[in-house]
Amino acid sequence: MLRDKLYAQLEEMYDEMVGWRRHLHQYPELSFMEKATPVFIADKLRSYGYEVREHVGGNGVVAKISGGKTSGITVALRADMDALPIQDLKSCEYASTVPGVMHACGHDGHTSSLLAIAKVLADQKEQLPGNFVLIFQHAEEISPGGANPMIQDGVLDGVDAIYGVHLWSLLPYGTISSRSGAIMAASDEFKIEVNGKGGHGGLPHQTVDAVVVSSHIVVNLQSIVSRNVDPTESCVISVGTINGGTGFNVIAESTSMIGTVRTFHPDVLELVSTRMEEVIAGTCKMFHADYRFEYNRGYPPVINHAGEAERFKRVGQQVVDQAQVLESPQMMAGEDFAYYLQQVPGCFMFVGAGNEEQGIVYPHHHPRFDFDERAMLNGAKLLLAMALDRMQVIA
Amino acid sequence: MLRDKLYAQLEEMYDEMVGWRRHLHQYPELSFMEKATPVFIADKLRSYGYEVREHVGGNGVVAKISGGKTSGITVALRADMDALPIQDLKSCEYASTVPGVMHACGHDGHTSSLLAIAKVLADQKEQLPGNFVLIFQHAEEISPGGANPMIQDGVLDGVDAIYGVHLWSLLPYGTISSRSGAIMAASDEFKIEVNGKGGHGGLPHQTVDAVVVSSHIVVNLQSIVSRNVDPTESCVISVGTINGGTGFNVIAESTSMIGTVRTFHPDVLELVSTRMEEVIAGTCKMFHADYRFEYNRGYPPVINHAGEAERFKRVGQQVVDQAQVLESPQMMAGEDFAYYLQQVPGCFMFVGAGNEEQGIVYPHHHPRFDFDERAMLNGAKLLLAMALDRMQVIA
Amino acid sequence: MLRDKLYAQLEEMYDEMVGWRRHLHQYPELSFMEKATPVFIADKLRSYGYEVREHVGGNGVVAKISGGKTSGITVALRADMDALPIQDLKSCEYASTVPGVMHACGHDGHTSSLLAIAKVLADQKEQLPGNFVLIFQHAEEISPGGANPMIQDGVLDGVDAIYGVHLWSLLPYGTISSRSGAIMAASDEFKIEVNGKGGHGGLPHQTVDAVVVSSHIVVNLQSIVSRNVDPTESCVISVGTINGGTGFNVIAESTSMIGTVRTFHPDVLELVSTRMEEVIAGTCKMFHADYRFEYNRGYPPVINHAGEAERFKRVGQQVVDQAQVLESPQMMAGEDFAYYLQQVPGCFMFVGAGNEEQGIVYPHHHPRFDFDERAMLNGAKLLLAMALDRMQVIA
Amino acid sequence: MLRDKLYAQLEEMYDEMVGWRRHLHQYPELSFMEKATPVFIADKLRSYGYEVREHVGGNGVVAKISGGKTSGITVALRADMDALPIQDLKSCEYASTVPGVMHACGHDGHTSSLLAIAKVLADQKEQLPGNFVLIFQHAEEISPGGANPMIQDGVLDGVDAIYGVHLWSLLPYGTISSRSGAIMAASDEFKIEVNGKGGHGGLPHQTVDAVVVSSHIVVNLQSIVSRNVDPTESCVISVGTINGGTGFNVIAESTSMIGTVRTFHPDVLELVSTRMEEVIAGTCKMFHADYRFEYNRGYPPVINHAGEAERFKRVGQQVVDQAQVLESPQMMAGEDFAYYLQQVPGCFMFVGAGNEEQGIVYPHHHPRFDFDERAMLNGAKLLLAMALDRMQVIA
Repeated sequence: MLRDKLYAQLEEMYDEMVGWRRHLHQYPELSFMEKATPVFIADKLRSYGYEVREHVGGNGVVAKISGGKTSGITVALRADMDALPIQDLKSCEYASTVPGVMHACGHDGHTSSLLAIAKVLADQKEQLPGNFVLIFQHAEEISPGGANPMIQDGVLDGVDAIYGVHLWSLLPYGTISSRSGAIMAASDEFKIEVNGKGGHGGLPHQTVDAVVVSSHIVVNLQSIVSRNVDPTESCVISVGTINGGTGFNVIAESTSMIGTVRTFHPDVLELVSTRMEEVIAGTCKMFHADYRFEYNRGYPPVINHAGEAERFKRVGQQVVDQAQVLESPQMMAGEDFAYYLQQVPGCFMFVGAGNEEQGIVYPHHHPRFDFDERAMLNGAKLLLAMALDRMQVIA
Repeated sequence: MLRDKLYAQLEEMYDEMVGWRRHLHQYPELSFMEKATPVFIADKLRSYGYEVREHVGGNGVVAKISGGKTSGITVALRADMDALPIQDLKSCEYASTVPGVMHACGHDGHTSSLLAIAKVLADQKEQLPGNFVLIFQHAEEISPGGANPMIQDGVLDGVDAIYGVHLWSLLPYGTISSRSGAIMAASDEFKIEVNGKGGHGGLPHQTVDAVVVSSHIVVNLQSIVSRNVDPTESCVISVGTINGGTGFNVIAESTSMIGTVRTFHPDVLELVSTRMEEVIAGTCKMFHADYRFEYNRGYPPVINHAGEAERFKRVGQQVVDQAQVLESPQMMAGEDFAYYLQQVPGCFMFVGAGNEEQGIVYPHHHPRFDFDERAMLNGAKLLLAMALDRMQVIA
Repeated sequence: MLRDKLYAQLEEMYDEMVGWRRHLHQYPELSFMEKATPVFIADKLRSYGYEVREHVGGNGVVAKISGGKTSGITVALRADMDALPIQDLKSCEYASTVPGVMHACGHDGHTSSLLAIAKVLADQKEQLPGNFVLIFQHAEEISPGGANPMIQDGVLDGVDAIYGVHLWSLLPYGTISSRSGAIMAASDEFKIEVNGKGGHGGLPHQTVDAVVVSSHIVVNLQSIVSRNVDPTESCVISVGTINGGTGFNVIAESTSMIGTVRTFHPDVLELVSTRMEEVIAGTCKMFHADYRFEYNRGYPPVINHAGEAERFKRVGQQVVDQAQVLESPQMMAGEDFAYYLQQVPGCFMFVGAGNEEQGIVYPHHHPRFDFDERAMLNGAKLLLAMALDRMQVIA
Repeated sequence: MLRDKLYAQLEEMYDEMVGWRRHLHQYPELSFMEKATPVFIADKLRSYGYEVREHVGGNGVVAKISGGKTSGITVALRADMDALPIQDLKSCEYASTVPGVMHACGHDGHTSSLLAIAKVLADQKEQLPGNFVLIFQHAEEISPGGANPMIQDGVLDGVDAIYGVHLWSLLPYGTISSRSGAIMAASDEFKIEVNGKGGHGGLPHQTVDAVVVSSHIVVNLQSIVSRNVDPTESCVISVGTINGGTGFNVIAESTSMIGTVRTFHPDVLELVSTRMEEVIAGTCKMFHADYRFEYNRGYPPVINHAGEAERFKRVGQQVVDQAQVLESPQMMAGEDFAYYLQQVPGCFMFVGAGNEEQGIVYPHHHPRFDFDERAMLNGAKLLLAMALDRMQVIA
């Protein structure tokens, strides 16, 4: 049977997948600045015989393969490739070699999984019951992201369905999960600048202390989630960075803060952006400071197609034990996979990659983030299983 | 009369003083990093015939002159020379050329005044009724400061009295002021590090948000001054800088803050340092964060000698109109002139250098700080008047 | 058809229902202090021929009726009867006559609906396809509530299913709604006492200001919901009252606060009660205050039986238009109907009672709360429809 | 010598003074509600032969005596008589018998001292070198106070000087203290009402939570003292009481707070009242609440006449050891003795009344406040000494 053959080949490639992943992990590249990574991908794809499109919608790489027994169905599989501005604090030998940059979200694993799929598809080209579009997307971590420009550059042309996976360190290795409807949150970005009046550290009454004003803003913002948002709606407001001041004995003239808002409902975004400005304006006015507030809409929520979520529940058992096919909770993280799903039906799925015994317990975006590398195999199998099922159902 | 002759000569030097000051203003040097400035001073002093000691207690410069009609009295006059880590926002032609460094406290003017004094003393050497030690001190702005090492390097040996002035932009030009007893505050320095647990911006419940913890600390610290310090005692706690976080969608693992404490009474310092640690510890514990708190004692208060403050009231009228000789309020700023006054009697005095009409209204340490340059002349005259009076009283 | 006959009779009783409701509204009684209300209910029931049990589990009233064509199925219908410690601010003629006590939650309407049902059931006793237990429950508003003692007093003995409705001013008249699973929140109660050190209003440094400490506690508690609770879980922490201090010029020795916590998940209750004590303890320690924290578990969540929720969707259309049978969101309010559902299958349902045109827009527990009285008819019909359906399905 | 004779008589009266004081302590009366106390005073005065004016400016009592050897100098001596709305927590036999009312400031002692003086003056009437006006003032604790209406009622007519003492538990028994210039603070009073929108405790998003808004106001007010007031000026803002909410599961519609502001400088009052309104308005606006802010000017600062403060330093040694005549710090408490000093020269003085060994360590206005009763004798002697000195200096 084709699927079993493909699975067996994937398993043989496991050591190679680990090698790729560790290489990418050592040389991470920030969003929109991917250079070596797409070359690495394209080189591998070419070596398997693919014709490769590079610089798709930016730094994206795309390859297509038409099956010999094609049903006419075309399925896209997507992996992302970019890293994060986080200093790697792991002390393993494959830790990042780039100061302040790290694959702290598992995109290195996604890329390795899809490369392995590319290899086994190429080997079984003649047996494939449909066509595959392999999307190696750049820039998932930073809105406006790479998905939209790649879509505009045609990667979904003729595509009937799309699937993507995310390795997930907070789920134990061996599990996979997804859900129907909203599975990942809308993710907006904001920037706050507070402008006070600087001065001597010993003469506060002649100044407007931007550090004190900003601290009050951060504290006051907490009450939006605790008091203003409908408690049955999910919402997160996180101030990610705060910076201000020039010296210990100089009261700060200004500070700047950036952060993110997450939720599943557009009304909440509306409410939160309005309330944030009210809180910032009220706090600044009270303390005689000025402000600049910028609120930028980011990725919409990821909405899985109901029928595709059903497919996941069914075919997931071809990858892991039935008991390990889980209903995913809603996730506060955002994903520009949302844009693909606005165009074609599909499903976004999580692949358990945590392992307490091995100390793989850190959340995504943590400086000690890692994942159980065997999960890359599960991810590859799941993507294949979904695609093959889609092709055969129709065929 | 000698004093009138010296005053006349100082007035002739005014343009030259302005030139020196503007040169120094364009090439400011940070505390403990003074290189060109001491060379500039030493060159000038040598050109007037002084034997110059360089690298005194670090980057200090000292010159002595023995009067021809000496009473045996030796008076030290002190100027400081260092600049601040502030970006100059003035748009005049003598604005700082060094990014992020600025003479935002008037030390350039102090140096120019004392250089002019050096010149006129050298010209009238034979008529001088005593000996002068001219102290050009480095590193006044950063504790532990230059005063202590210069004292240890012998600058006060044989000195009977010491005087210093500070140009002051918040006093109008034409005034001078001082007071008996504590005139400038003790100035301590603190550093706070908050260590939380970083993570994804959308998953706050898996993190300890260092930005939120730090903001609560800043807000909570306000209550020390408002509730714990005896309201009849002066006290300031200023958090000068706050920095933390790595990205808009990453909850910050840690933040750091530095700041200053000012007061006139040692009991208050004791109370404040204890209360600060309690507030920081309590806040961090409540939010599951760790902290590091460093509290460093800085300059002690500047305590003017009662008799010397009386002298100021009397001889000040030789410099400005009687009505312009003011009783100074206590100042929250610190000064390492405090250390000299712990060794020998003396007086520290303010020289009005503000000028509303000319827009010279910014407080010290402000990025637009400037001073009315004519005040340099008043400063020089006041130092001379104090020294001559001290010598003649005894002679 | 029996149902239609019963509905017609209910409609004829509408004016009487309104009269009962307005009488009860004028004479509200607080939880556990119901005296006149149960007498009013028992008198009515007896006049319809019921044998009445009074003082059931406290102030509860229960009546049973056995149908002439009984299937053997026994269904319980429940109404609550108590009022709230809120001053009625309505200016209508049926406004509360009891200072500080008000039917601000619609229990007067629930009682009237169930009394009308009692009447029509008595009239059609011989035609009834099963047995009915009519539960008029006291003390729903205050935990530990009246449901538990009434259950212990046997009201569910032999009961196969139970139904209850809540008139709801925030749903428009004409709608009804319910849902499968958790529909109303767990509702806990807490009490915080802060003990500082009182003293003269002008001498804060000799005191521990309980008002300042308490204010910090309230502000700090906000961060539990905003930062510590999983954003995909619902949670509310409300401090309902704060009281402290004895005079404008006396710093308060102590304050007390009471409030409520709402959520649907027991893990969240665990987390919140722990975090609350940490926040209170940390804040008090930081300010040298002591505290007493009492956290009492209240009603568990109301969990509708899945099959009964299905029944609601089906039979709801016998009461209102299909389009008006709504899926209820989860509600943050608590209800001791939860205890009945822990014993027997059943369903708790909301009956729309808002009416913007008539100005009936205030939320429950608001001093101007009211409801569209026609909703009482819908509530009665819905309860009857559920019961009859339950009896016939089995029979 | 007259003074010695008077002192000896006072000492003989000590037990009687203690008896009076303990009686008054057991039956304290609130400001403006003094009934039994003025009767008690008037009865005693009449029994010594005085003609007594009652109901002076309200509940005040005044008696005059003209000395037989009069210099023509008239000196007023003043005691206050009212108590505080504080629950007495002492467990001694003379503890207050009136629930919630207590002599927690020592006015019972002041009254006893002045009554004793009345007695000894009457006994030595013929020897007195001047005239005495004995002012037993009501309502010192609550602005607008009793001093002003008593002045308007003529108590200072013909008076050349006025003296008053305050027993002070924070100074050890045996000391007395005063100072030239501002010795006690201006004392203003404020009231804040916050009006939000009430509602169900589980539905915060439909409400404006007045408890949360008020807590933010209290926290935000702290920054006025810590950041806006010149640190060399004294200032206190104390919120004395906070009250709001109706039930644990009802979000509060409104709260009210009252408090006091203390300072020595009118500019600070101006700044603080403006900043308070800005902080309250900004906080309320940010949270969509309304407010009412009332700021009432209270007693002005107590300013001792320089010459009278000199007199205190000199004659104080006739009462206690020279080393125990102390320079008083500025006190944050207010006193309507300020109004007398706006009319005639005089001096307000503190009499040490603390005693650590006896556990007399609680601050004024504390529920366990007490004083060393021997201090009443020192207070009486000091008042007499000042008056006699004033008369003889002129005579």
